[in-house]
Parts: sequence; structure tokens; C-alpha cells
Amino acid sequence: MKLIDGGICAAKGFMASGIHCGIRKNTAKRDLSLIFSEKQATAAAVYTTNLVKGAPLLVTKAHLANGTAQAVICNSGNANTCNANGVEIAEKMCELTAAATGVAADDVVVASTGVIGQPLSLDPIAPAIPALAALLTKDGSDDAAQGIMTTDTVKKEVAVEFTVGGKTCHIGGIAKGSGMIHPNMATMLVFVTTDVAISSEMLQKALSTDIQNTFNMLSVDGDTSTNDMVTVLANGMAENEEITAEGEDFDTFMKALNTVTVFLSKSIAGDGEGATKLLECVVTGGKTEQIAKTVAKSVVCSSLLKAAMFGADANWGRVLCAIGYSGADVDVTKIDVAFKSPKGEILVCKDGAGVPFSEEIAKEILLEKEIDILVALNDGEATATAWGCDLTYDYVKINGDYRT
Amino acid sequence: MKLIDGGICAAKGFMASGIHCGIRKNTAKRDLSLIFSEKQATAAAVYTTNLVKGAPLLVTKAHLANGTAQAVICNSGNANTCNANGVEIAEKMCELTAAATGVAADDVVVASTGVIGQPLSLDPIAPAIPALAALLTKDGSDDAAQGIMTTDTVKKEVAVEFTVGGKTCHIGGIAKGSGMIHPNMATMLVFVTTDVAISSEMLQKALSTDIQNTFNMLSVDGDTSTNDMVTVLANGMAENEEITAEGEDFDTFMKALNTVTVFLSKSIAGDGEGATKLLECVVTGGKTEQIAKTVAKSVVCSSLLKAAMFGADANWGRVLCAIGYSGADVDVTKIDVAFKSPKGEILVCKDGAGVPFSEEIAKEILLEKEIDILVALNDGEATATAWGCDLTYDYVKINGDYRT
Repeated sequence: MKLIDGGICAAKGFMASGIHCGIRKNTAKRDLSLIFSEKQATAAAVYTTNLVKGAPLLVTKAHLANGTAQAVICNSGNANTCNANGVEIAEKMCELTAAATGVAADDVVVASTGVIGQPLSLDPIAPAIPALAALLTKDGSDDAAQGIMTTDTVKKEVAVEFTVGGKTCHIGGIAKGSGMIHPNMATMLVFVTTDVAISSEMLQKALSTDIQNTFNMLSVDGDTSTNDMVTVLANGMAENEEITAEGEDFDTFMKALNTVTVFLSKSIAGDGEGATKLLECVVTGGKTEQIAKTVAKSVVCSSLLKAAMFGADANWGRVLCAIGYSGADVDVTKIDVAFKSPKGEILVCKDGAGVPFSEEIAKEILLEKEIDILVALNDGEATATAWGCDLTYDYVKINGDYRT
Repeated sequence: MKLIDGGICAAKGFMASGIHCGIRKNTAKRDLSLIFSEKQATAAAVYTTNLVKGAPLLVTKAHLANGTAQAVICNSGNANTCNANGVEIAEKMCELTAAATGVAADDVVVASTGVIGQPLSLDPIAPAIPALAALLTKDGSDDAAQGIMTTDTVKKEVAVEFTVGGKTCHIGGIAKGSGMIHPNMATMLVFVTTDVAISSEMLQKALSTDIQNTFNMLSVDGDTSTNDMVTVLANGMAENEEITAEGEDFDTFMKALNTVTVFLSKSIAGDGEGATKLLECVVTGGKTEQIAKTVAKSVVCSSLLKAAMFGADANWGRVLCAIGYSGADVDVTKIDVAFKSPKGEILVCKDGAGVPFSEEIAKEILLEKEIDILVALNDGEATATAWGCDLTYDYVKINGDYRT
């Protein structure tokens, strides 16, 4: 398995495009993206568990009921959520995309991201969709990745090449997500494409399993979005024997998918709103996997720890505090905590109590851009990893006046 | 019932003092406080549910097992938590207090607040306790309130006078709390004193009931502290007939207690670390009280909404988002949202969708220091109120380098 260029266009038969159509005032910012597969693809998706759901999710869910899709249309700048005519607008976006690309309207996935509760006008979108279709290209992943960005500062894009049954296969993905990120059985917007031949049942199984350890272990600010969605389109053009059951080929696909989703999860966490650091909490020695996960997630969600990491302050008491209120069944007196970065690793807590350590070395370690918080529960064999970011002045700035 | 001066010394027989003993470097900041009752008092307490518990809580819990107490010793600057010798130090603080005041060591409540995981030395404390005892006075509530402050910017103190069975009674309290505040069946440090005669069973019942709607409906940053504790001492010197069961007297006492706890809850929220605004979320029309509470608490806990309130941005979509992920069983299409302050009230969402409103008027309302977020679920009769604060640059500043 190797990392390659091309993002969502790395897989055979996929093209993409992204343009500025006018939903956003800033003409330099792309705000509408299209992904297209030459052949009808099997499709799988997971959605937010927020009771308030964006209209595009309702429409996409209906369209994916038959397990197939061929195109994805996505705008940024407006979430099309909590609007009286939201479903109607989302349906119309699919119809326009279908007309422009020659696919069936119910093979179109629609997604929107941006401000909640402001009506989404079709005026800038309707004329832009044929233009997007005309611009579809194998080099379009970059443009599409940019078109779905909101407060993201970097585009999130990845692709890998691997082999299934002797056939060269590809899987790539793009993601947007920077704030309102605290997935709960679903996540921010992620679009993954692959040329692997796989049944929609097995594709859904692969996705639903994978996100438990990737996007669902990610938090920027504890707010589970209304518009979270991950979709995977698999068009089979790699011509491997279709994966229809568990086995070696499915495992290989799962591994490739996981490479893409871990990369995108870390990209989203590291580009959390205002973030200067990517935090990775690695928990080992848990009595159960659920305990390890609960602990890892509680640590990366703690506002106090996040602020301490921003200040490069080895305030490990906040790690223990977050473990203690997580609800996980742990023995506090067995817990060890260490901080790690490219500059080294330092033990700060042993058996639930502080150990003497050099504040200078700790500071040097914590001034790096990627920090591992290593928690050893010493209570079993289960492990888990969660990703987050530091809490900074800029998070407050971005969110103090996002809408107006 | 009327508000009076005197704080924890308003009730008959209570005295207090607070000094700088040297736990903190800043000599202008008091760091050790003593509360004393002339007569042995019945006592009740609630504690944090964090699995990581400060050593003073363990000692206090043991001392209150018999339902009585006569003195409270509390230091700031160090939480005495996650230290190997924590319990020994806390016990020693009680013994020193007992010796200096002439009460039994197991009638001493001990509490500590500050940094977690740094050994607490008795060196500055041991000589200071006799000094504190010598300084005990009816005017000491202010000094004691200051001695327990950490990042608090204002002292939190209140007292009320009321009548039980024809006797004039008093209840007063002090609190500290600014960060790491997200009570869960317990709360930050609060000390309440009263001269009411009440059995320890009824006192515990009153406290345990009251906190469900006061301190437990309060969040500054989602972090449940390791050292949260509320204690009430009732010394009976008002000479009312002892309250030993539910009835009119108990109801009167509950009302007085609630006046004190609501005042202190709002004081803590409004003085949340870095806060510029007190947020009060009032939920009406819930199907059950639990639903109304869950919704109210989710709204005041949302980092995104808190940042929007800092920016005086009427971003009501974040209110709906927080309701949607709260886990409460609500009908999103019935929800109305309004913002209210001394400058007026403005409806921003009706039946789960946006309504046109004047951004100018909304801004004027949200620029005030106390903001009500009114959520009508229109789905029943239950109501709930939760308190929080905005998320500001200063929260990040305070917590980016709290320890070093």
C-alpha cells in the first residue's frame, strides 16, 4: 500500500471540479464542488446523530436507500439546515446535477455546510452546476476539496494505491471540518472514492466499522454538527472480483480505507478552528476497548487540557481530571501519564500521582506541533486513540463572529 | 425573606477569618480560611462524582459520617489531589485546626483548591492555623471568601434572613469557582452556614435536593472538578423548633437555602474564567423535567454558542444544534428560541426554523452582561434553568499558563 496523489480522482473513473458560484461573498473562495463517477457506484454513508439534521442529509439518505450513487454535489457557505424549504432546495440541487451529468437524480448525493438557519437560494447554484459539469477533470480533486472548505485553513485530501486479487486498486478522500466537530456515530463532511468492486452491503459494513476508530474518535469543540456525513462511492473499475463477504480482500480494503480515514481525521483535528497543535491521546492497558475509548476521548475533549497544550504547560493533573470524570471504570491509582513529541517523551504521572520531572524538557516537548498524550491504565490489554487540538485565542475569535 | 450582609457570619454563632500564609507566592492574596461555629452544628455535604477525588474530600467525608461539624479549614493555591501523602496532610490540617479552636478533629471539614498533583507542604499552614483562630470574627466572611478564591475575580458571598416557627433565622454562603466547573451531583467549593435547628438527615435532604436545580445546572467549561464540594453547617442557635421532617418549616428553609445557592450559582457562572457575560438558559414546555434540564445544560455548555455570545452574535442555529445533540427526546419542529436581556427580547427561531429579525436589535440585546436564552420546547409543562458564561480570549489566556 502506498500514498499517491490525486485525492478523490486517484481511483479510476472519478472526476471532480470546484468553483466559486456566489453563495459566499468572497469571490476567491470556491463554494460549490462536484464529484462524478463514469460508472454507477455502490455507495455507503454514515450521518450525524444530531436530532437537528440538515435537509441535504435527509435527501441523501433517501437517495442512497438503494445502495448506489454516481455523483456528489456539495456547497459551502450555507448548511441548508433549519430552513422551511430545505428539502425542496436539496432535491432541486440533485435534479440540476442529474440533468448536467446525465445520471439519475436519485444517484446524486447532496451535502451542504456553513451557517445554520439561513435560507439557501438556488440563484447562484442553478447556473453553476452545468459549469461545474463542464469543468469535471481527473485533476479536479484539489478544486473540489477547496469548494467544501468553511473555516478550514488547509484542504484535506489523500489517496492510496493497493492490490486486491492481483488488481491495482485506489481509494482517495477529501474532507472539510474545523469547528462544530465532535462526531457521534458520524462526522463532518468526508467524501471517499474507490475503484474497488465491492457490494453496497460490504461497503457500508466497512465504513460503519471503520469510523468507530477514526472519525468518531475525533473532537475539536464538543459540538456534534447537524450536517455531518461521510460517504464512500465504489465504482468497481479496478475490475477486482467483487468483494461480497468478509475475507482477505475485505481486510485489504478495510486497511486501505483506514489509511485514508486516519489521515483525514488527523488533518481535521490538526486544522481545528484556531488550532496550533494536533493532540493525539493514546490509551493503553484498558480493561475493555470501550473504557480505553471513553478515556481517550474525554482527554482530548477537555477545554482545560486543550488550553494548557496551547500554552505548552505540562499540566497533567488536567489529564487525570478528565479521566476521572469520563465515566469510565478505571483504577486511578494505576494510571501513568507521559507527554511525547518529536522532541522526546517525558513521564509526568506514575500510579496516579505526580513524579518529579524537568519543566524545561517538558516545555520543549510541548512546544512542538504534534503532541501525544500517553495514558497507561495498567488494567488490561485494550487500547484506543483519539484526536483533538488545542484551544486558542483564534478559536474564540473565529466563533465570536462567524455569522455576521 | 430578605437579603442581608454578613455572608457566612450572618447566622448566629458563626465566625470566620482568612489570611495569606504563603502557599501562594503573591502575598496580597489570601490563601487560607477558617470558619467556626460556637456550637457543634449538624452538617451535610455533597461531593464531586469525579473518580479522581481530592484527598480533603476523602477526609471530610469520613469526618461528616456522624452528621456533625464545628469548623472548616480551606486553602487555595494547591488542590492536594493526586499526591501520595494527600490524606495524611489533610488529616493533619484538621488536627491543627482542632487544636487551635478546641473542637474535635473529626468535627473539622477540610477543603483544598488549586493546582492538581503538586505536593502540599504543611510548612506555611501549620503556624498559620493558630493565627487564623486568633483572628476569628463576626466580620470575617469577606476575608474567608477571599482566602478560597483561585482564578475568581470577585468574591462570592450572600446571606438571607427568614423566619421559622416565629424565630428569626439566617443562612449565608461563600463560594469559589471560576474554571473546571461542570458539576455532576456535586460542585465547586461552597460553604453555607445557618443558625436554623435542623437534623443532619433533613439538612442532607435539603442540600441534595437543592443542588439538582442549582449547582448541578451550572457549567463554565465542561470539566468536572476533582475537588468539588458543598457543605452546610447548621448550629441551631436561632432556637427554632428543630426541623426533623418535611413540612412548612422545611419548605421555608429550602426556600432560603435556594436563595443562597441560586445567588452563588449565578455568581460563579458570571465570574467563569475569562467570562464577560452570564448566560441563563430557561427552557419551558418540556415533556419531562429531565428533558428540560438536559436541553438547558447542553445549550450553556456549547463552546460554539458561548463564543457567539462573547461576540454578541445572534447565531441561534448553534442553540438548535446543541439541543439536537443533547440526547434529549424533543420535537425539533416545535422549538422556539428567543434572546433576552435588560435591553429587550427578540424571537429568532419559531417551530425549529428561522424567522426574520433585526440584527441591529439582536446585537443591542446581546451586548448586555446578562443574557437569557429562552427555549420553548412546546411539548409539555416541565421547565429548567441552567447557567453558564461566554467563551473568551481570556479563558484561553488564563488556562494556557495556569500552572507555571
